[in-house]
Amino acid sequence: MLTNLEHLGLAVKDLEAATSLYTTLLGQEPYKREHVASEAVDTVFFQVGGSKIELLAGTSPDSAITRYLEKKPEGIHHVAFEVDDIRAEMARLRAEGFQLLNEEPKRGADNKLVCFVHPKSAGGVLVELCQTIK
Amino acid sequence: MLTNLEHLGLAVKDLEAATSLYTTLLGQEPYKREHVASEAVDTVFFQVGGSKIELLAGTSPDSAITRYLEKKPEGIHHVAFEVDDIRAEMARLRAEGFQLLNEEPKRGADNKLVCFVHPKSAGGVLVELCQTIK
Repeated sequence: MLTNLEHLGLAVKDLEAATSLYTTLLGQEPYKREHVASEAVDTVFFQVGGSKIELLAGTSPDSAITRYLEKKPEGIHHVAFEVDDIRAEMARLRAEGFQLLNEEPKRGADNKLVCFVHPKSAGGVLVELCQTIK
Repeated sequence: MLTNLEHLGLAVKDLEAATSLYTTLLGQEPYKREHVASEAVDTVFFQVGGSKIELLAGTSPDSAITRYLEKKPEGIHHVAFEVDDIRAEMARLRAEGFQLLNEEPKRGADNKLVCFVHPKSAGGVLVELCQTIK
């Protein structure tokens, strides 16, 4: 079971401009910035109630975010749901016919194990499962 | 200030198929179905932690969702944030230069007063402000 809408990931071209815009829109400052070398992204996080807004900017031409923005406009890139046991949820969804984009959980931003579900499996939405590493 | 990621709205073509898909993906049943005559949409709501997933299907050719799906694929349509005082937030954002899509709050689904912010103002994201009617 997916237990919380953990965060919404937004693909942005100019991280400083987007951070300024979202600081004004949300009416609050971000609480964290993090570079995720494995994904070649710089991230900025805002806490909004029990969920987060994660701004994502690519830091290399090979970054998934850079490649995404070559084909699509800035906007919502993915939605992440918290799970208690990511391996159990991956097995459950695989058995239900969902296409997972990684076979094993991988290390994501914000101290999480993550797995992505293909948008073709999920009504056009790129869904991330994430489990906090304790 | 925007206090919670209240819901994520997904535009879908076939509401029954999408309800079945999201019931399986989320691992839970929806808690509500509602027809919103003013918007010409049928909606299905899932509660996921402190946020909701709202499936939206148009019920007439004039529905904003029907028109959206003529140009874009199924997927995330908007993100809604809870506010305590929608008129105060609308005035704050208008003063900051954000373009609002309605001048006055209007009645939305799920017992809410709502106002939309133009995606051009908000990094490509259609943002809804919503205040629960008490």
